[in-house]
Amino acid sequence: MAHDSSPLDQLVGVRDFEAVDSWLAEHGAVDIAEELVRLALVDRAVVFRLLPDSRVLAVFEALDPLHQQQLLDALADDSVHELFLRLDADDRARLLEEMPATVTDRMLVTLPDQARLDTNLLLGYPRASAGRAMNPRYADVRVDQTAADALSRVRSAGLRSREVHVVPVTDHRRRFVGVVDLPDLVTAAIGTPVGELIRFDTYSVRVDEDREVAARLMQEADLVALPVVDAEDRLAGLITVDDAMEILESEDTEDIHRVGGVAPLDVAYMDASVLQHARKRGMWLLVLIVAAASTITIMEAFEDELAAVHVLAFFIPLLVDTGGNAGTQASTLVIRAMAVGEVRFSDLSRILHRELRIGLLLGLALGSVSFVIISLLYGRDLGVVVAVTLVAICTWASFAGGLLPLLAKRLGVDPAVISGPLITTVVDATGLIIYFLVAGVVLGL
Amino acid sequence: MAHDSSPLDQLVGVRDFEAVDSWLAEHGAVDIAEELVRLALVDRAVVFRLLPDSRVLAVFEALDPLHQQQLLDALADDSVHELFLRLDADDRARLLEEMPATVTDRMLVTLPDQARLDTNLLLGYPRASAGRAMNPRYADVRVDQTAADALSRVRSAGLRSREVHVVPVTDHRRRFVGVVDLPDLVTAAIGTPVGELIRFDTYSVRVDEDREVAARLMQEADLVALPVVDAEDRLAGLITVDDAMEILESEDTEDIHRVGGVAPLDVAYMDASVLQHARKRGMWLLVLIVAAASTITIMEAFEDELAAVHVLAFFIPLLVDTGGNAGTQASTLVIRAMAVGEVRFSDLSRILHRELRIGLLLGLALGSVSFVIISLLYGRDLGVVVAVTLVAICTWASFAGGLLPLLAKRLGVDPAVISGPLITTVVDATGLIIYFLVAGVVLGL
Repeated sequence: MAHDSSPLDQLVGVRDFEAVDSWLAEHGAVDIAEELVRLALVDRAVVFRLLPDSRVLAVFEALDPLHQQQLLDALADDSVHELFLRLDADDRARLLEEMPATVTDRMLVTLPDQARLDTNLLLGYPRASAGRAMNPRYADVRVDQTAADALSRVRSAGLRSREVHVVPVTDHRRRFVGVVDLPDLVTAAIGTPVGELIRFDTYSVRVDEDREVAARLMQEADLVALPVVDAEDRLAGLITVDDAMEILESEDTEDIHRVGGVAPLDVAYMDASVLQHARKRGMWLLVLIVAAASTITIMEAFEDELAAVHVLAFFIPLLVDTGGNAGTQASTLVIRAMAVGEVRFSDLSRILHRELRIGLLLGLALGSVSFVIISLLYGRDLGVVVAVTLVAICTWASFAGGLLPLLAKRLGVDPAVISGPLITTVVDATGLIIYFLVAGVVLGL
Repeated sequence: MAHDSSPLDQLVGVRDFEAVDSWLAEHGAVDIAEELVRLALVDRAVVFRLLPDSRVLAVFEALDPLHQQQLLDALADDSVHELFLRLDADDRARLLEEMPATVTDRMLVTLPDQARLDTNLLLGYPRASAGRAMNPRYADVRVDQTAADALSRVRSAGLRSREVHVVPVTDHRRRFVGVVDLPDLVTAAIGTPVGELIRFDTYSVRVDEDREVAARLMQEADLVALPVVDAEDRLAGLITVDDAMEILESEDTEDIHRVGGVAPLDVAYMDASVLQHARKRGMWLLVLIVAAASTITIMEAFEDELAAVHVLAFFIPLLVDTGGNAGTQASTLVIRAMAVGEVRFSDLSRILHRELRIGLLLGLALGSVSFVIISLLYGRDLGVVVAVTLVAICTWASFAGGLLPLLAKRLGVDPAVISGPLITTVVDATGLIIYFLVAGVVLGL
């Protein structure tokens, strides 16, 4: 839990390691991890090595991936090696892929055969696949075993407690058949065949399935573990719920970053350097400013109208903002609905139909309010121009906000890219054209 | 998993209920739930009643909260009653609070005593609290019991399998002491005292803690269940990992909606009516347009400058967009970092310091590019005006984007509100002032 004052950094600051020791003994792994990352890099390694052996893994696992990486860099090789041995193969694979190839090779060589095999296996699957995210260690039981035999096999498999909440069942050709919940295995009469204990709703995914699809399935079906199978339906591993939560969190972070117009930061906010931030954001800002440059051309094309009635310029920021906002709202909602699997491309016409009506309603509401106020302050004609423009812009922006993310997905582009700033820029340019055309007609320019 | 064609709606369409039956037998609960919500409301109830008794609960739980609600409305009272009996108390409480008070009372009366007590207990906790999200049914064991006694208590408690992955341990005054993982209990020598099996890293939260804090703790510490205790440290219930995943998902959806400038929709995109959409979005658009109205006043204040050099108007949409984008980027990143617990108010000065430098870098990069292009097309003076404005706007926007979410949090406002559209509008108004001031100095207006 978050504390507002952190004594750990003070204790480390004055080098009172006895006090650090007792601080560590009094705090949980999550608290320790949280305070650890507030220390200077070298101090993190020092404090980490003060941890009793039995707690090293829990604290390491409570760090997020970037901080794990940083800590590994700061630790001596033998500490890293020992830590690596104790990690799940999926976490090991994730860390290795971030390291320089020479370090990866050196680390792999020092691993015992089984751990190396496991890790190499995972590294062979595509980066965002279920295969990469699974834990290849599991205790499978045979469909024709008795509950008692199965339980003793689980007990003797030497797995960690969170690896056996769900027990996968295979047939005599090692094909995946279903899962048994450990509590059901524990509470069954000893002679019951495992086949009778299999859950009715048994799910599995293929090794090459997208890891986000796997994680959302686990969430929807309330699964503690999800079996991953190969092309021949043979069991390859299990995705555990802690991994599923991390997958969802990182995908949601990516979506939020994209909606906010940033290339997703794969590191924590505070840990990315100023230059990294500038690169990730600058790339997008540049794309957006190039797109926005079209507004200059449009304004220039309507130079005569602007010169004739220069008051027209006053309303440009407001109209441009409102169109962008209406478009962003629509695209954000549609993108989120796509991400959680609620809408698909086949819903396109229903979505566009709704967005047209929603946009029209919004435009009518905002248009009427604006008409009254602007008519009073700037005359009836300008009131009509702004009001009609608002109706047209809101309708068009909502329509575009519903359409573009679905189109992007169809074309294989991440729909979250078509949100926030990008939709704003697209709608801005078209909104200006609408504005000047309406003004031309109403004011007779 | 998502299918591109849905035979279920066709089968229901032609009233071929035999085929519907076999379709249901061949599909998992998540698939069924997914296709169910694509049917007309009355048909959902019809299909739902075709499900064998043993599968009703799994399908119901795979529906999201709104669809559960809709289904309950469509089912006859006795089916609802039966379903209610089988739900966890926390899910029952969540559904009841959405219903009209008369329906809630009628439902509560028909529940057996224990279930009614459980539900009323949960309804007594604040809406977004850990107490409301917990399951009040658990099998606790005593710290001085043997592993064998504890295991038989767990077996005989009549709980569902996912309720016993983690077993809470209490002392003789029913105070919470720690948890034991079921696999550890299963594999321990039968005479081992429970006290020796307790996990070193034992976490708990208070009933009145924010449910999001509880869920993030579970994620960080990889917990399958989190004990919830009252003010006297007595065990009140457990939050299970499926509930934690749903809490995180719904909080992330809220954040994404807010970043996109929408009041969070508490129902699914497709299920909210056009009017509901218009209300949720219109409220925000109205706030934003009122804020944007300040840009009219600002433009008016610089009317003379605009009249003297009407080309100045050409660059307004581009400058306004870029400022909004830079501000949105900064606020989105800071808000997400706050949501996942990475930054706090005490980091304010570090964040502002970084954002100033990042903004300056971005401004310099965009400014230099713009200077070259605009100088060539519109002359050196305008090139200088736009470039200097971009540097100032990017720096200011990044600064404001870092500052405002932290300030909002301090003032008790959800920081996600200060993002996307709102930050755009704030930065737009100030950006215009910067632009005209710079133009005044450089062009000598």
